[in-house]
Amino acid sequence: MSFTRRDFMKTTGAGIMVCGLPCIQQAGFIEKSESPNKKSFQFAIAGYSFLKFNLDQSLSMMQRLGIYHLALKDFHLPLNSSQEEIDRTLAKMNSSGVSPYGVGPIYMKTEVEADQAFSYAKKAGVSLVIGVPNYELLPYVEKKIKAYDIRLAIHNHGPDIQLYPSVDDIWNNIKSRDQRMGICMDIGHTTRLGLDPVTTFLKYKDRIFDIHIWDCDKPKKKGWCVEGGRGIIDFPRFFKALKKADYRGTCSLEYAKDMTDPLPGMAESFGYFNGVLAGLNV
Amino acid sequence: MSFTRRDFMKTTGAGIMVCGLPCIQQAGFIEKSESPNKKSFQFAIAGYSFLKFNLDQSLSMMQRLGIYHLALKDFHLPLNSSQEEIDRTLAKMNSSGVSPYGVGPIYMKTEVEADQAFSYAKKAGVSLVIGVPNYELLPYVEKKIKAYDIRLAIHNHGPDIQLYPSVDDIWNNIKSRDQRMGICMDIGHTTRLGLDPVTTFLKYKDRIFDIHIWDCDKPKKKGWCVEGGRGIIDFPRFFKALKKADYRGTCSLEYAKDMTDPLPGMAESFGYFNGVLAGLNV
Repeated sequence: MSFTRRDFMKTTGAGIMVCGLPCIQQAGFIEKSESPNKKSFQFAIAGYSFLKFNLDQSLSMMQRLGIYHLALKDFHLPLNSSQEEIDRTLAKMNSSGVSPYGVGPIYMKTEVEADQAFSYAKKAGVSLVIGVPNYELLPYVEKKIKAYDIRLAIHNHGPDIQLYPSVDDIWNNIKSRDQRMGICMDIGHTTRLGLDPVTTFLKYKDRIFDIHIWDCDKPKKKGWCVEGGRGIIDFPRFFKALKKADYRGTCSLEYAKDMTDPLPGMAESFGYFNGVLAGLNV
Repeated sequence: MSFTRRDFMKTTGAGIMVCGLPCIQQAGFIEKSESPNKKSFQFAIAGYSFLKFNLDQSLSMMQRLGIYHLALKDFHLPLNSSQEEIDRTLAKMNSSGVSPYGVGPIYMKTEVEADQAFSYAKKAGVSLVIGVPNYELLPYVEKKIKAYDIRLAIHNHGPDIQLYPSVDDIWNNIKSRDQRMGICMDIGHTTRLGLDPVTTFLKYKDRIFDIHIWDCDKPKKKGWCVEGGRGIIDFPRFFKALKKADYRGTCSLEYAKDMTDPLPGMAESFGYFNGVLAGLNV
């Protein structure tokens, strides 16, 4: 019974370092080592995750998640907004510590819609449009990319729609176009096509500007979003590939489970992603 | 422009494996490899995390978190409950898929309170009491352990209270007692004393039956709970030590941040812990 020790602690008060006591041989707290190869990419959120919430609610959730990069969606800031309206939204985001890293995904079915998308991105001060232009619009969209010097990342949507189901399909359509026309690789939809996200990433990494990350429960059309780590995507292997390739784009969570209450699942997903990265460094 | 391919997909319908198409050289989905050294311990929740919620609400949160082991606290099931009351609670837990892995932490200041704690544990059908018996009660508590064949894991509470501040202090008080009198090592409170959880674990692992895991933001008394991964505890190093030692007890999240809305932080913490374990296996 160590009465002496308890009396000593009582006398010296709280916060005492027990390792200083002669009766105890104990190492003091050991700091986490700084990662020798920190990730070069940034976590972000694809605005679609907040479909059921207004911008204020979405920004509160982002603060809680500790994620401060957002791809703005039209339901938070309409595509036909004036500069003044856009500035008000940007000021609100700024006061929450959140910045837009891009806008979209924006579907472009006509030249007018392509005009609007690039004008909107410019007014919002971003240099990236995540978009889905009709195939026949690609020559026109390429001109907008050049005129604005704004990059376009085309998003693949898996088996759901015929427009760019796979990253391969995007690549086949952009490979001979301006280098600023690239890919927003959605790893969940890639998985739903039965394809491997790592193989796909390695094949097209030089033209991948943004990645939509979410875990998926089945490698087929009926597969859908689950909390990061509960699905079938091998995130350790995926992040290892990203780090090895020194990927410097964004990894943006597009979370489409429990859309009326997504915060716990988004938190678990980011926790998992950060945990995987921490585990990889040991 | 791959019109042929799109037409082909339209004809064959959704869910098609693109890798089967002759125009695409692409590996199919690659399954996550089963971990060569799966964890031997179990994640659980310390009931204190749900201080502000009734049992029904707590069980809903556990289902959402996918965690099914709970240490029952008195505010969910009073210590003086009858066998019938206990059975009703156990049936409710069972219908949610949740089982109690233990009860507590229970403070024991008198012999009557020690009697009650062990009787309660027996009625609840568990073989583990997480507890904080007064030092002078240890000989009496040891008799209860022997009479009931129920293990006691004494919980360390860091610089806040004089009773068992550190795991070293627990050890000094139990080392010559029955082997079923052991430790519930709280790694957050260990950190708040400026001590290293890994060193502590390795020193006393044979008598550690339960671990309270939570991340902590400072190695001193004013340090407190933060989401797993956002604090200073080196979880990759910690879990690596647990796996190497083949620790077979529980790792029970005791989450004391945002106690009126703990679910997102608990989800992020479990996501992080699972991510670290996944990352360690690569």
